[in-house]
Amino acid sequence: MPGGTDQTLRPFLWRATNLYSDTEIVSRNHDGMQRYTYSEYEGRTSQLANALDEYGIESGDRVGTFCWNHSRHFETYFAVPSIGAQLHTINPLLPDAHIQYIVDNADDELIFVDQSLASKLAGAVADADDEFDGVDFVVMGHEAADDLEATPYESFIEGHATDYDWPDVDEDQPAGMCYTSGTTGNPKGVEYTQQMLWSHTMASQTPQGIPMADDDVVMPVVPMFHVNAWGMPFTATAGGAKQVFPGPSPEPEDLATLIENEGVTISAGVPTVWLGLMEYCSEHDVDLSTLETVIVGGSAAPKSMVEWFDTQGVEVLHAWGMTEMAPIGSVSHLKSDLATADYDTQVEKRSKQGLVVPGLEFKVIDDDGEEIVWNGQEFGELWIRGPWVTTEYFERPEANEADFEDGWLKTGDVVTVDKDGYIKIVDREKDVIKSGGEWISSVELENAIMAHDGVAEAAVVGVPHERWQERPVAFVVPAEGADRETLVDEINELLADEYPKWWLPDEIEFIKEVPKTATGKFSKKDIREEYADQSLVEGQVPDEAAPDRN
Amino acid sequence: MPGGTDQTLRPFLWRATNLYSDTEIVSRNHDGMQRYTYSEYEGRTSQLANALDEYGIESGDRVGTFCWNHSRHFETYFAVPSIGAQLHTINPLLPDAHIQYIVDNADDELIFVDQSLASKLAGAVADADDEFDGVDFVVMGHEAADDLEATPYESFIEGHATDYDWPDVDEDQPAGMCYTSGTTGNPKGVEYTQQMLWSHTMASQTPQGIPMADDDVVMPVVPMFHVNAWGMPFTATAGGAKQVFPGPSPEPEDLATLIENEGVTISAGVPTVWLGLMEYCSEHDVDLSTLETVIVGGSAAPKSMVEWFDTQGVEVLHAWGMTEMAPIGSVSHLKSDLATADYDTQVEKRSKQGLVVPGLEFKVIDDDGEEIVWNGQEFGELWIRGPWVTTEYFERPEANEADFEDGWLKTGDVVTVDKDGYIKIVDREKDVIKSGGEWISSVELENAIMAHDGVAEAAVVGVPHERWQERPVAFVVPAEGADRETLVDEINELLADEYPKWWLPDEIEFIKEVPKTATGKFSKKDIREEYADQSLVEGQVPDEAAPDRN
Ligand SMILES: Nc1ncnc2c1ncn2[C@@H]1O[C@H](COP(=O)(O)OP(=O)(O)OP(=O)(O)O)[C@@H](O)[C@H]1O
Ligand SMILES: Nc1ncnc2c1ncn2[C@@H]1O[C@H](COP(=O)(O)OP(=O)(O)OP(=O)(O)O)[C@@H](O)[C@H]1O
Ligand SMILES: [Mg+2]
Ligand SMILES: [Mg+2]
Repeated sequence: MPGGTDQTLRPFLWRATNLYSDTEIVSRNHDGMQRYTYSEYEGRTSQLANALDEYGIESGDRVGTFCWNHSRHFETYFAVPSIGAQLHTINPLLPDAHIQYIVDNADDELIFVDQSLASKLAGAVADADDEFDGVDFVVMGHEAADDLEATPYESFIEGHATDYDWPDVDEDQPAGMCYTSGTTGNPKGVEYTQQMLWSHTMASQTPQGIPMADDDVVMPVVPMFHVNAWGMPFTATAGGAKQVFPGPSPEPEDLATLIENEGVTISAGVPTVWLGLMEYCSEHDVDLSTLETVIVGGSAAPKSMVEWFDTQGVEVLHAWGMTEMAPIGSVSHLKSDLATADYDTQVEKRSKQGLVVPGLEFKVIDDDGEEIVWNGQEFGELWIRGPWVTTEYFERPEANEADFEDGWLKTGDVVTVDKDGYIKIVDREKDVIKSGGEWISSVELENAIMAHDGVAEAAVVGVPHERWQERPVAFVVPAEGADRETLVDEINELLADEYPKWWLPDEIEFIKEVPKTATGKFSKKDIREEYADQSLVEGQVPDEAAPDRN
Repeated sequence: MPGGTDQTLRPFLWRATNLYSDTEIVSRNHDGMQRYTYSEYEGRTSQLANALDEYGIESGDRVGTFCWNHSRHFETYFAVPSIGAQLHTINPLLPDAHIQYIVDNADDELIFVDQSLASKLAGAVADADDEFDGVDFVVMGHEAADDLEATPYESFIEGHATDYDWPDVDEDQPAGMCYTSGTTGNPKGVEYTQQMLWSHTMASQTPQGIPMADDDVVMPVVPMFHVNAWGMPFTATAGGAKQVFPGPSPEPEDLATLIENEGVTISAGVPTVWLGLMEYCSEHDVDLSTLETVIVGGSAAPKSMVEWFDTQGVEVLHAWGMTEMAPIGSVSHLKSDLATADYDTQVEKRSKQGLVVPGLEFKVIDDDGEEIVWNGQEFGELWIRGPWVTTEYFERPEANEADFEDGWLKTGDVVTVDKDGYIKIVDREKDVIKSGGEWISSVELENAIMAHDGVAEAAVVGVPHERWQERPVAFVVPAEGADRETLVDEINELLADEYPKWWLPDEIEFIKEVPKTATGKFSKKDIREEYADQSLVEGQVPDEAAPDRN
């Protein structure tokens, strides 16, 4: 049969270590700054591969990590998949019950854990039934862990040969695994085959993705425990870029220092990371001159973030993705015919979730099962498919039945698409509020409310209603020093100006904090469970809580 | 089994027609300039797909083209593979016997042929035994052909629906086919699966390849009948670029006009194309200001070409490839750590065949079967493998036995690799001259000879020798007005300055013209057959025609 050799990660490592042997990998590790070259990286990765062999890891086995972003974690990124095993990155911020479920479900053999996260993991282990039976631990560094019986990483790899005769791994072999954030329900397992990771790396490298070359210095702030830090360690290796890992719980100061000292050109993270850096920069003198691109995703990037980085000469690329797609789906590059548009129009476009990257196809299905028109108004659920979009969840036959159709992933994201093809996420399907059969975007209302100075955070959820099915209620965390007396009226006015009457929340409740998921997103599931009760809107619902159809 | 959907070309078309529906495709067709949008392109491509269905083309069938670079040819590029059939591009410059062999070997059902090439094809058909039995013809345009019974293309597609329900094609399905140039022997058939073309497109789109975006205007001068014009029509579509097709037998004036009128940013072709343009520019006032990148490959780009384009503000990217790899293997981007090197060093590096693109692996094997050291000195045969490198020839079991090993393609190219990883082709294995068991690079000697003003072309080949196995003879085409009396001595002196004694040709012969292959390369096979006789060197070989081993 004609065809080329299999699509695997190994050649990316081969290329970097041969063409860029002296290029640096810099890491803020638990035991201090680590600085070595791709060539030394390859040696240590080979040592790790030999150690995994000796430990007994075989093709198809799963190896877990419970770690921040650092060089040892990066060593597992190539060693584990390239011996034919599967790297399962575990989010250490999850509640114990989720961690127990995930380790058990994935059947991990061995888990690499950070010194600073060992006691957290030990807690989950102590508390477990049989979920951790037969699982061994390696703790990242030279020292043993206090609370966990674990081999120090350096002893684990010590004495092993610095070369390894890498096998030819099949492209259909699962190489990675990650669970979704659990924003809308229990985390779901997603397996990444070698081919999926290869495809994702190549698509990231296109001009329509987030390309990296040998003159780049790449710092993923987005955690390596979540969707492979958006694949950046693989993409940077393919491009031969210098890599900078910001280590355990990086603070804005750490990021600023690394950007300045290492000359970071590309970085990536969720909006809160950049809000933190922006605040830090307003109080300190930070040199961002080397920084060219900041990728923002995971949650929506506010326009003000795009604008602030513009003033610093840094291009924000707003990206949308999902664990299910390793994760990149769209990136908000400015189209060339918008180069002459006025600045506000440009920011408007760049603040959307962007243009689908080459290799993927999508469609948007409305409530009646029809494809929407691309006019920036109509909305529906985004369906997507492609070589790096999973076509099933791990061991979840019911979810598979519901979430996939003919290779399409039903994303659960509700979007508009404008005539230029920019996708904008207006809500999650599970969060969208259905009043009288029509949709109200909870995200739109939240953003409008959060634009008020007196509001720190706001979440809008639907509460059940007999006649209209659901009605919106806003849960608001007032900003420090805000006048609670007038706030409700002001919010009501502000919304009434912008939205139809039937969109307006029937109740505004103050809360102390919006509950968050382990990846830092608003957990509306928790809000609904904790607060949302239909009694909240009793007697406050308008007579006509749906658009006038006549 | 986990994994994404298949890797096929269709989503590239889908993206371009949806995101860049108004972007233009401009073509110098036989019947005048054609200018339409991606959206109209998609309509016509769908019509063609419907017409192919009606004609009876089925999944797996082969459809040939015998055409220059133009928009109708481009319509076959997506229509044929996307209905599951296979596009076989035939080089119309091949001798009739090769054409007959190729059409028969590939078992083409239907051939699309240009108006201007119809009589050439008719000749091959008239002359054939049964090679064309059952083959039908469609002639590109509105009119019938004079010498060939053929349906006009416009009648063929007319009346068919402008949309098409594209099937899900398997990624292992052969989508394309091309025969090698026949430089070293008979052309060999290479099939491209959907996955290979997808991989090649993505690898081309990396910063290490030849990336294209929506602000680019892409003009492939390299023929679409040879290795899909280096994949550019696919890459440009994936990137949403404007495309310009230079039509039948483009002259330098045509290229200059298209560059100026259409604002071409990226173009690609073999060295002779650019020599032609350079000459034209020296005599005419041509505005190259929009041109950013010129890709040169197929044969070695002379340094002077790199330098001349630099003076025009155009970056030459020297690329190496093979029919067997769809075709891109390496591109000579300047490494970032050479950004501060002096200009001569930079040109030296950029004139090499370049750095391997991400996704491939290579090794270089010397005469003793050992891998060479990357020091720019040692040389050996280049072996390469990857997802878009074929692992077999079409129906050539003997060649397959000889040319492939464990997924590696033995390229037949003899190369050095310097410490920076730049590959330099020093010869073809079949052309390299073996004197006393040691290699002499025929290409080095030719380049040195051609540097002489009095020389138009030169080819150096080995003639058999009893004691030393082979000895070099130079075949020289003197330049117009050159002094033949002194030329031989001057060449001998020039070579003696640079090369060891045992490398020097034992004879220099004048000839009228160096025979060329159908892709315009020196055909040393023909020189050897026509001229190279061992009597040429009788009595002229030095006593020690090998390096001193002591
Ligand atoms: N740039 C963005 N703007 C807005 N939302 C985004 C953006 N990027 C990602 N998202 C949201 O994040 C989701 C993907 O997140 P992830 O895969 O981490 O898990 P989750 O969907 O939050 O959790 P779960 O699937 O378990 O409910 C997307 O479906 C989308 O809702
Ligand atoms: N930039 C370049 N510099 C020098 N040689 C090149 C370059 N690019 C390609 N080549 C030569 O062209 C070859 C590939 O050409 P192609 O596939 O068209 O057929 P061919 O090798 O000439 O013919 P055949 O394989 O039938 O003998 C390479 O193997 C190499 O020898
Ligand atoms: Mg999700
Ligand atoms: Mg060849």
